[in-house]
Amino acid sequence: MELWYTEEQTPSLRLSCKVRETLTTAQTPYQHLAIIDTEAFGPMLVLDGMVMTTIADEFVYHEMISHPALFTHPCPRKVAVIGGGDGGAIREVLQHPQVEKAILAEIDGEVIAQSRKFLPEIAGALGNPKVEIHIGDGFAYLREHKGEFDIVLVDSTEPVGPAVALFSRDFYAAVYAALRPDGIMVAQTESPFYNQEILAGAYKGMQAVFPKVHTYLASIPTYPSGLWSFTLASKQYDPLTNQRQPHPGFISKYYTPELHRSCFVLPQFVRELLSRP
Amino acid sequence: MELWYTEEQTPSLRLSCKVRETLTTAQTPYQHLAIIDTEAFGPMLVLDGMVMTTIADEFVYHEMISHPALFTHPCPRKVAVIGGGDGGAIREVLQHPQVEKAILAEIDGEVIAQSRKFLPEIAGALGNPKVEIHIGDGFAYLREHKGEFDIVLVDSTEPVGPAVALFSRDFYAAVYAALRPDGIMVAQTESPFYNQEILAGAYKGMQAVFPKVHTYLASIPTYPSGLWSFTLASKQYDPLTNQRQPHPGFISKYYTPELHRSCFVLPQFVRELLSRP
Repeated sequence: MELWYTEEQTPSLRLSCKVRETLTTAQTPYQHLAIIDTEAFGPMLVLDGMVMTTIADEFVYHEMISHPALFTHPCPRKVAVIGGGDGGAIREVLQHPQVEKAILAEIDGEVIAQSRKFLPEIAGALGNPKVEIHIGDGFAYLREHKGEFDIVLVDSTEPVGPAVALFSRDFYAAVYAALRPDGIMVAQTESPFYNQEILAGAYKGMQAVFPKVHTYLASIPTYPSGLWSFTLASKQYDPLTNQRQPHPGFISKYYTPELHRSCFVLPQFVRELLSRP
Repeated sequence: MELWYTEEQTPSLRLSCKVRETLTTAQTPYQHLAIIDTEAFGPMLVLDGMVMTTIADEFVYHEMISHPALFTHPCPRKVAVIGGGDGGAIREVLQHPQVEKAILAEIDGEVIAQSRKFLPEIAGALGNPKVEIHIGDGFAYLREHKGEFDIVLVDSTEPVGPAVALFSRDFYAAVYAALRPDGIMVAQTESPFYNQEILAGAYKGMQAVFPKVHTYLASIPTYPSGLWSFTLASKQYDPLTNQRQPHPGFISKYYTPELHRSCFVLPQFVRELLSRP
């Protein structure tokens, strides 16, 4: 018998992966969770029918949600990750020796528990003593911690289910307030091909709150269209002029110091999308 | 009844598109050809079960196989496209006012005929008086035209079926011989995620023949992994130091002068792939 997992990326587009084994499934209070072992990508975390991460290509997403901001800030000591229960962003954050505390604020404790069990390559860093885990609403967490963070990374699901509020102007204002006076936020902002309204809305929402906003791109094969956007909003530092170089021992499979600059160079159609009035 | 077209991108990975209508199908002497109207991407050309181009995202491939070379050469007067029977690369080549003659050498006349009929947005430029169409083997065509071209673009299918020879060192030597002493070639060299051996082999094959070889990347949602590579091999000009700026009236949806440089900045895993001994 052949088992295939099919994601309905849009109502008229589907990606299907051959499955070796279902490792776990659960209905959590927030969403349906599955971890399946696929032939093409190895173990894959699926939330509400959407691929969140896979062993084969998680490096792109986790390096690229983290390093552009962390190599822009001159000394990122305290970093919060909102969402990101698989622990991949935390793992990359901890590559930076300046980081003293990395807080994971994830609403769904099951994502953390199952990732630690079935995706240890991704979640392994969650046991690091610098990590503090808060299981609860990330929005509420930020409201209660004003002026504390050098960097906030918003590693959310698509804006359906628990993540809807994380794409609102109120949320960006809460992130602004939770950041120190020279803080930086980064949010995943969906596919520039398939989710243009979400990307443009997030970009404008952050522009209404932060003085410096830049969208950048990375290639993630298991995400719809294979091209993904992140948007960096900063109170003070500019990613193109305040770039630090990696320290000895820094390891990456996607990020490079040259890519730190080139990822901000957008195709013409994305430039036009972001400059729409 | 719902109709879906499914491409087996790898034996364990499938992309499926909802189909409005099958516009044409044919078994040509070289391959199976279909043009289907998909909900997600509009009309789509499929050869031997592989997506070649779609109305929605063809701009990326056709701009990016053409403009990096054409904006590197100081005066591209005579350009040959090997393969590329849909006419999209020719359309972009003709945006350059220096071009006096654009030759299309396509082995399968049916691709040209059906594209002209069902994909006029892509194939329309094939009627331009600067265009010369040769239906026949591109490899043989180049062998018979030594020292003639400023630029040769290799717009081939995957290296199966008629395109196998177009990924060989002998072919790259034939392109070298067909180019003028300052000529440039570009070939599509597959996905850096899924076709690493093909990309590395093409890169090394071109390096054995040309003094300057650079791989660059572009994001194409309907191609496997969504990330595609092109490799530019040059006798004299370097794409990063010999870049010309676009002329007034140049139109693009993907290419920009900034992207001309940034597309050559490769993720770490691609750098490592290309530097393997």
